[in-house]
Amino acid sequence: MKNMESFLFVPEGSDFTIWNIPFGVLERKGYTAVCTRIGDVIVDLNQCMATPLFDGLDLPGEIFLQPSLNAFMALGKGVTVPAREQIQAALAKGGILDNDIYKETDIFLPADDVKLRLPIDIGDYTDFYSSREHATNVGTMFRDPANALLPNWLHLPVGYHGRSSSIVMSGTPIRRPNGQTMPDGADRPVFGPSKQLDFELEMAFVIGTGTKLGQTIPVQNAEEHIFGLMLFNDWSARDIQKWEYVPLGPFLAKNFASTISPWVVTLEAIEPFRVAGPGQSPEVLPYLAADGKKNYDIHLSVEIIDADGASKPVSASNFKYMYWNMCQQLAHHTVNGCNVRTGDIMASGTISGPTPDSYGSMLEICWKGTKPVQMPNGTQRTFIQNGDTVRIRGWCSKEGVRIGFGECDGTITAD
Amino acid sequence: MKNMESFLFVPEGSDFTIWNIPFGVLERKGYTAVCTRIGDVIVDLNQCMATPLFDGLDLPGEIFLQPSLNAFMALGKGVTVPAREQIQAALAKGGILDNDIYKETDIFLPADDVKLRLPIDIGDYTDFYSSREHATNVGTMFRDPANALLPNWLHLPVGYHGRSSSIVMSGTPIRRPNGQTMPDGADRPVFGPSKQLDFELEMAFVIGTGTKLGQTIPVQNAEEHIFGLMLFNDWSARDIQKWEYVPLGPFLAKNFASTISPWVVTLEAIEPFRVAGPGQSPEVLPYLAADGKKNYDIHLSVEIIDADGASKPVSASNFKYMYWNMCQQLAHHTVNGCNVRTGDIMASGTISGPTPDSYGSMLEICWKGTKPVQMPNGTQRTFIQNGDTVRIRGWCSKEGVRIGFGECDGTITAD
Repeated sequence: MKNMESFLFVPEGSDFTIWNIPFGVLERKGYTAVCTRIGDVIVDLNQCMATPLFDGLDLPGEIFLQPSLNAFMALGKGVTVPAREQIQAALAKGGILDNDIYKETDIFLPADDVKLRLPIDIGDYTDFYSSREHATNVGTMFRDPANALLPNWLHLPVGYHGRSSSIVMSGTPIRRPNGQTMPDGADRPVFGPSKQLDFELEMAFVIGTGTKLGQTIPVQNAEEHIFGLMLFNDWSARDIQKWEYVPLGPFLAKNFASTISPWVVTLEAIEPFRVAGPGQSPEVLPYLAADGKKNYDIHLSVEIIDADGASKPVSASNFKYMYWNMCQQLAHHTVNGCNVRTGDIMASGTISGPTPDSYGSMLEICWKGTKPVQMPNGTQRTFIQNGDTVRIRGWCSKEGVRIGFGECDGTITAD
Repeated sequence: MKNMESFLFVPEGSDFTIWNIPFGVLERKGYTAVCTRIGDVIVDLNQCMATPLFDGLDLPGEIFLQPSLNAFMALGKGVTVPAREQIQAALAKGGILDNDIYKETDIFLPADDVKLRLPIDIGDYTDFYSSREHATNVGTMFRDPANALLPNWLHLPVGYHGRSSSIVMSGTPIRRPNGQTMPDGADRPVFGPSKQLDFELEMAFVIGTGTKLGQTIPVQNAEEHIFGLMLFNDWSARDIQKWEYVPLGPFLAKNFASTISPWVVTLEAIEPFRVAGPGQSPEVLPYLAADGKKNYDIHLSVEIIDADGASKPVSASNFKYMYWNMCQQLAHHTVNGCNVRTGDIMASGTISGPTPDSYGSMLEICWKGTKPVQMPNGTQRTFIQNGDTVRIRGWCSKEGVRIGFGECDGTITAD
């Protein structure tokens, strides 16, 4: 694998190497198509249907002439995995597309000229809470440091349902939400813009093939249903959350927006980066028992870019820290017969690591406002200000092989 | 209005009078169409496109040749309200359809021969918690009778996100969910079928026309976005819920299934049944202030029908008891800029009245198992058993005018 190389130029440090071959959806003048990317070149897969690239796969004729990846993902891994492999081979040196006759076609497009859209028609969205460090930090700050984890936390991957309608593409401006909050010491709530707007560093996976109501997905079959992953920012208004969330969980504090990265990186792409997860003790119930390496070594970073463009890195975390892995999450989600559908997405919850520089939210990084972040221009942040952009990145890197997720950006605008 | 009469026979006590004209979707041999019902006759509205019924409305040609009501609802009330009025007039004595030439067409179908399907392509599903009596009962049983309502409850309509994928049509069998529970006094959780399977008597409204991210819907505009209502059973596994729901709310305890009734009754149909809601004190924040009659007098009943067909009525409640009305719920839901889409549904939460015979769940009716329900065959219920059918009904009735919602049925099968 290491020696593979594309005939397209891949800049040093690019997320989009020949090993990646992620899937996205481009849009121009009413035309939408599934695409992939090598270096700074977008490859229109629908245009590739006129080449021999997909020979032998028997794909439906309009499978890439779509506004989302859903139709393709629904074909199942028996089709999507070889399809991706054929795309990868075609984009390698000497591959099918490495041919002058394709240079003047609409197959290859400069990334800067292409508008990408939300790649998934999202059905249901679930958010987990699967980082032990994050749950411990929150429990320590708001409850009892000696009993930071709630009694159920080590026995099941805690999750809750979120809002699909407000999941937006990277780059979509995020309006600061208004809402009800209860100021400390007040006897009645007040209404206004959130004063504690935060990000949450998360990853999300998307369901490729679904189940029927009543079916379960055992841990050992879960990967068959997981098409791939994206970066995810679960924007959170902490002051709204604090007042509203007991007893039924977060609602308006989170459903004003979540930001997702444009490229779905497949499970197959990150296969070389599997690692073992943290040990689980107490022992989990049999339906959650997961053998083997079920975590992935994905570096994650967060920076805050102020209105003048000056950047401040605020977190360096890793997806491998997750206590509950994706297979356990999906097995738990369906163990009661809950069905999943193509395009459902499931997010990890905030991914915090063991040290303060790896925490995945301003709430933790600034420890409830007590340790402000110093910005390059001398101002401070305890939460996110209007005009700030939060940029999440994620990448795998090993022995010269790099696979990245691109950027997950959101800029906060005034309410 | 009172004197209106259909040329089709309407049995005494029918839910489907000329005043109702609800919307559903029928399905046969791959054909799906929007329909309505008078008495025991289904009226295929797509077949009516070949009659003069919709003259003057400029409807898209395939607006009723659909698998759901979404396309029709998305047209907005400027179209859907006159469309319904023209359907109503056409089905009245002497109306356009009161003509022998239509008797042999596929317009009119016997209700017993028609299969109805889930009438809505549901986007997001939100569940509120808006009955003061229900919240008080739960708080009394599980927390502190002296402080049964949590501090936020009288200030905002508490809500949370639910699962869309598992919302099923009335009549769909419901498999008893498996899950994790923590038995009293145990030191570790166990796995198995829920032993505390409950119903929740609710109503749900459906969004007709949506909003863009960042927009709000003021209380006074909310009815423009509410197409109509259905009956809703928010099945709940209390033992699973108790163990999982802190701190992020219910998840597997509810997402195994919710049951919805097949007919969407429009807001316009129930207009004559508007009533004032309960007084709200303390005064709500200005964005939640709602003048006028925003509640509806809708009688609600629940019966448990055992495997032998013997029925036991267990609740007689009313939608008018809701402390927070639908307009307040929708205004609150969108005040942070959260967008809503055609087909989103929002449920009320359990609708309990002031007296034990009006409580909307077995948890409350049997008061945590201390007051079992006596079934006709001498057995007892504190929760729902395998083979039991839970049937919810709802209807408005005044001065000879009756408008009903049909039945919302679910039968529990073994895990």
